[in-house]
Amino acid sequence: MRIALTQLNPTIGALSQNAEKVKKYVKSASKKDAELVVFTELSLSGYPPKDLMLYESFLDRERELIVNEIAPLSGGSGPKILIGAAHRSGSKLYNGALLLEEGRIKSIHLKTLLPNFDVFDEERYFTRCIDRRVEMIGDLPTAITVCEDIWNDHDYFPEPLYDIDPLVSLFGQGARLLLNLSASPYHLGKHKLREDMLPFLAKKYNSAVIYLNQVGGNDDLVFDGSSLVYNQHGELLYRASALEEELFFVDSEDLYKPAVKVVPPDRDDIGTVLQVLRLGLKDYVTKTGFKKVVLGLSGGIDSAVVAALAAEAIGRENVLGVMMPSPYSSAHSVEDAVALADNLGIGHRLISIEKPFQSFIELLNDSKRPVQDLAEENLQARLRSNILMNISNREGYMVLATGNKSELAVGYSTLYGDMSGGLAPIADLPKMMVYDLAWHINEVNRREVIPERTITKPPSAELRPEQKDEDSLPPYHILDPILYHYIEENLSAADITARGYGEETVKKVIRLVDMSEFKRRQAATGLRVTTSSFGIGRRMPIARGFE
Amino acid sequence: MRIALTQLNPTIGALSQNAEKVKKYVKSASKKDAELVVFTELSLSGYPPKDLMLYESFLDRERELIVNEIAPLSGGSGPKILIGAAHRSGSKLYNGALLLEEGRIKSIHLKTLLPNFDVFDEERYFTRCIDRRVEMIGDLPTAITVCEDIWNDHDYFPEPLYDIDPLVSLFGQGARLLLNLSASPYHLGKHKLREDMLPFLAKKYNSAVIYLNQVGGNDDLVFDGSSLVYNQHGELLYRASALEEELFFVDSEDLYKPAVKVVPPDRDDIGTVLQVLRLGLKDYVTKTGFKKVVLGLSGGIDSAVVAALAAEAIGRENVLGVMMPSPYSSAHSVEDAVALADNLGIGHRLISIEKPFQSFIELLNDSKRPVQDLAEENLQARLRSNILMNISNREGYMVLATGNKSELAVGYSTLYGDMSGGLAPIADLPKMMVYDLAWHINEVNRREVIPERTITKPPSAELRPEQKDEDSLPPYHILDPILYHYIEENLSAADITARGYGEETVKKVIRLVDMSEFKRRQAATGLRVTTSSFGIGRRMPIARGFE
Repeated sequence: MRIALTQLNPTIGALSQNAEKVKKYVKSASKKDAELVVFTELSLSGYPPKDLMLYESFLDRERELIVNEIAPLSGGSGPKILIGAAHRSGSKLYNGALLLEEGRIKSIHLKTLLPNFDVFDEERYFTRCIDRRVEMIGDLPTAITVCEDIWNDHDYFPEPLYDIDPLVSLFGQGARLLLNLSASPYHLGKHKLREDMLPFLAKKYNSAVIYLNQVGGNDDLVFDGSSLVYNQHGELLYRASALEEELFFVDSEDLYKPAVKVVPPDRDDIGTVLQVLRLGLKDYVTKTGFKKVVLGLSGGIDSAVVAALAAEAIGRENVLGVMMPSPYSSAHSVEDAVALADNLGIGHRLISIEKPFQSFIELLNDSKRPVQDLAEENLQARLRSNILMNISNREGYMVLATGNKSELAVGYSTLYGDMSGGLAPIADLPKMMVYDLAWHINEVNRREVIPERTITKPPSAELRPEQKDEDSLPPYHILDPILYHYIEENLSAADITARGYGEETVKKVIRLVDMSEFKRRQAATGLRVTTSSFGIGRRMPIARGFE
Repeated sequence: MRIALTQLNPTIGALSQNAEKVKKYVKSASKKDAELVVFTELSLSGYPPKDLMLYESFLDRERELIVNEIAPLSGGSGPKILIGAAHRSGSKLYNGALLLEEGRIKSIHLKTLLPNFDVFDEERYFTRCIDRRVEMIGDLPTAITVCEDIWNDHDYFPEPLYDIDPLVSLFGQGARLLLNLSASPYHLGKHKLREDMLPFLAKKYNSAVIYLNQVGGNDDLVFDGSSLVYNQHGELLYRASALEEELFFVDSEDLYKPAVKVVPPDRDDIGTVLQVLRLGLKDYVTKTGFKKVVLGLSGGIDSAVVAALAAEAIGRENVLGVMMPSPYSSAHSVEDAVALADNLGIGHRLISIEKPFQSFIELLNDSKRPVQDLAEENLQARLRSNILMNISNREGYMVLATGNKSELAVGYSTLYGDMSGGLAPIADLPKMMVYDLAWHINEVNRREVIPERTITKPPSAELRPEQKDEDSLPPYHILDPILYHYIEENLSAADITARGYGEETVKKVIRLVDMSEFKRRQAATGLRVTTSSFGIGRRMPIARGFE
């Protein structure tokens, strides 16, 4: 039997538009003689639909589209369709997969394991379904599962999150194919985990495995596709694109044969991060209805990397860089920014903040002269935000914030200043990873896209004379691992110190992180890259005491 | 037996400080011959502790304080102590109540029902405990429960949220006293619900009920105390303060006698809202370590109400109002603001934004003249934010944002402008409720605190000549109910139209709400008052399509 797999990039909430996509793919697949067309988790709402799931009218409309628009395509000589969708029963809501056949819903498979950690909130919306049944797909008894359902193997995970494992029941019923409809967002290391765990399941259950994942950016989350097909020996037969919607086909007989050709190993490294950020940036901009972006170019590495990402993601003609020097900007800052803009071929403007800065100094300082305190440092950043937002409001550009994770973590950034923007593309990249990415961008382009001086000069906010980041913060090669232990591993000051960092440094860093929660609460949305990003994935009180 | 009940106001995360409070109350209660001292849910961490619960070191420290500092007070002739605390068992974490007796943990009662809707995320942290046991408190078999545990009666609620009800088991074991350790945040109508449901349980189970609730503001949530004691006939014996920490006593014999004196009925109305906002504002400011606040005074009703709240909450000497007229400000705006400041006795400053505005016009407009577009409206709001943030950064004031829920809902506000601030005290008050509150403030003060012209003049942002809110929005008496149906009741455009509102108006309002999600994501924290506040209680995608 020929199975069509559709790695979909839905827009959240755009039910009709997503349904049109689904119909288009069913028709394409049907033309190529597919007998079954499979879609990802919650295909019509997109994942995660969040509180749209609390609107009855939204759920009504989703079901209406499935019954009236999509199911009919499975009638007559049409293929069967397996589609991720919400399902109501009484007052309960489930996250499920609907098998459409002969023009109607033939069977319903409802998710058992509901992730409710990290960025996930599924217990907020859905009820767990314990009773799972194998479905015959052609002559193959098939375990139809939804995302998290397959991530709880008690032999694979030393500490499984859930007591129950639906695969035990499904394979107990004689399943020979594991079919998983997913919407699994990217973080560094996830590819490796998938490509280790999935073949483990194949071998354990002597079953072929089809893992179909959503692709595309939805707010902070980037779904990286990379759908996978394994034979029953855990041999990788196919890996789909990490970047694009894709329709691919599998013949069920081939699922139990050795691989015809070797699939090259996956490299989940800075190159993947680059792809993921590009996709996330592009989708956030386009799915919010924007076409072009504007950002401040300081001559520093963060804004250079964001500009390069944006130029690749949405086209250099849609990116505008603005140089906004202040009295404390170094000579090289504008030079380096212009060099970058020229290298990228993006538009640029030079708008000095000296005059409005002077105007505020006269308004706010009795002496009518700069006093070079923290308030004036922040003021400069906020004047730049005023300018970028003016361009945004007047000319329809989305502002990109250029902050990295290290500075966001310790609050080395100005609220309503450089933290302003619709999206902060590198907000989840520690500074050392920003360096990696800069070198990598130059490497893959085989030329100096980001000026070398931008990468090699000591980082500085240039908000007062001779300022350097290291005046206020530990060097990034020390700061970043401390932040990793505290934010991604949830270790204590004592535990981190025991790993060889200075006690005072560790305490200072932790205190800075804790004290700047109020800033992060109002930060622009960042694209998730690490295992613990700021935003919905890390929920911390603002008003609090400390131990 | 004499039972001491402690309506605690903990600071989130301040374990040692909260433990000191607990010890102080145990000692006071002991002096007054209490045999049992009861504390609220998660007393040492405060509720909600959020992702602090993911730090092992935090949980270690909490337990250490209980075992080494608090439990010893129950030794010798000391009273028993019942305290809400996290409890680990293997890799699982529970939300529980620990009974301390003879210097050690005598028994552990773990929460069954874990709220995971609205602002609650308990499934993120805790495991449900199904097995519940009655505890003997003196000679009273007692159902010791934690918050949500009692909110699932299948006779009371037409659609109970959970299949299981731990009270069925506990009263099946012969409980005669229901003791509930809560941390239940305020919203309008909650008092009524509590004072209806709790006596229902008393009568149903023929059991006395002691409902002990946390008090105080923690970020967006205000816990309103109002702890309640009922006899087995559902007669109200006592209601604690809605505003303050309180230690009160109950003799267990009195729990089964008629009320000695009548407790006056609770009025959950605009007066309660006033109390709750004052408490929330005070606690947010003090728990973040601030002493004083600054806000822009426009002469309009929103800033007037926030100034009045702040003056009452933290003292007029700690409130600074700043008048920042622009070329489009009316003559009465500064007059009314000054009158307000004088009425309140708060400090005020006049800082015109004309010069920096002109400076930006020259920088950004080719004509060097204002063009009066949306960008310039926003610019004025952002220049005001620059000034307030400068005062904040330089002089240590917290900025209060003055926006109301109606404008936040439809995006009638400027991101990084009037939306700036550490706290937005009235962000969850629809505009019509702001009017109510303004009249109420004048009424309870028996004088014109908020100038009458401020309340009666047509609302205007004054960002262009002759601007009025009603130029852009439906009148608030129409806008507010539409917003209520859409945001609190999750109704569709069709359902709302069917309630008698114009179809075009409804569609426009819904579209405005949906389109301004990106602004709300970066808004200052608001204090929750309604059943559905923006923030963590309403989780919506930003990049999305619409139906």
